[in-house]
Amino acid sequence: MRKQLLATCAGALLVAGSHAAMAADGPHKKAIEARQAMFQLYSYHMGLLGGMAKGKIPYDAAIASEAAANLDAAANLGQSTLWPAGSDNSNAENGKTRALKEIWDTYPAIAEKSEQLKEATAVLAQNAGNGLDALKSSIGDAGAACKACHDDYRAKKK
Amino acid sequence: MRKQLLATCAGALLVAGSHAAMAADGPHKKAIEARQAMFQLYSYHMGLLGGMAKGKIPYDAAIASEAAANLDAAANLGQSTLWPAGSDNSNAENGKTRALKEIWDTYPAIAEKSEQLKEATAVLAQNAGNGLDALKSSIGDAGAACKACHDDYRAKKK
Repeated sequence: MRKQLLATCAGALLVAGSHAAMAADGPHKKAIEARQAMFQLYSYHMGLLGGMAKGKIPYDAAIASEAAANLDAAANLGQSTLWPAGSDNSNAENGKTRALKEIWDTYPAIAEKSEQLKEATAVLAQNAGNGLDALKSSIGDAGAACKACHDDYRAKKK
Repeated sequence: MRKQLLATCAGALLVAGSHAAMAADGPHKKAIEARQAMFQLYSYHMGLLGGMAKGKIPYDAAIASEAAANLDAAANLGQSTLWPAGSDNSNAENGKTRALKEIWDTYPAIAEKSEQLKEATAVLAQNAGNGLDALKSSIGDAGAACKACHDDYRAKKK
């Protein structure tokens, strides 16, 4: 019984501990949370559009159009305060960020990826409401732009 | 020792449990996370602008202008998929949302608050980069629009 209790307790502490380790609490907490909110909006709207393109969600022109417009708006947010030096994933106080130090070390190389994303979301915003085929024909470039940045600048999930 | 261990264990479980209770895990999880991301962007940029207006952050025209443009963009995101019926705070599976049921019960009354916010952020986006006085003169209406919606439609913090 006592051994079991210890095991349960260790498990609970592990969960509690991993939660504490995930939340950013250093000087870059606000900037990290803000950029993660931006990525959350990318992800949510790409999820809706991708779901429609794959036939998992019924195509709806109004929703597709709104989702693509939102994605384009999110891709065009100014980011000059969102990436302070030192807010990469090499420091535990930055929490669960997966932003690799390469972003800063190779800057402004990442800006090219950002431009590719904006070009793709602009086309997607024009096309997404014009039928499922139009959505399908333009979502690939947006997905590729997401992936290109993740491949180079985001740590793999642990 | 055993009593202490039990107390520690109970504490750890409480932390782990409260975390589990906070995260939305019901059918509206994605929509709730997306609207919270939108609010996070409101909050971050209002925080920057408010900090400058109050003299806590040095006024910087370029940053103020970008923050206000971002706030205006966030206020203008389409929200037609973000508020599914049943995603209010009366259901534990909706996690830490503070969205009151009144939003849906009195709909579309809330749309008026949204319009007031957009009017205020449009003015703020025009003025924020034109000097500290211009920022100060137009941030109040944006703050009031935030508060008006919170007063009527957001639960108090527990």
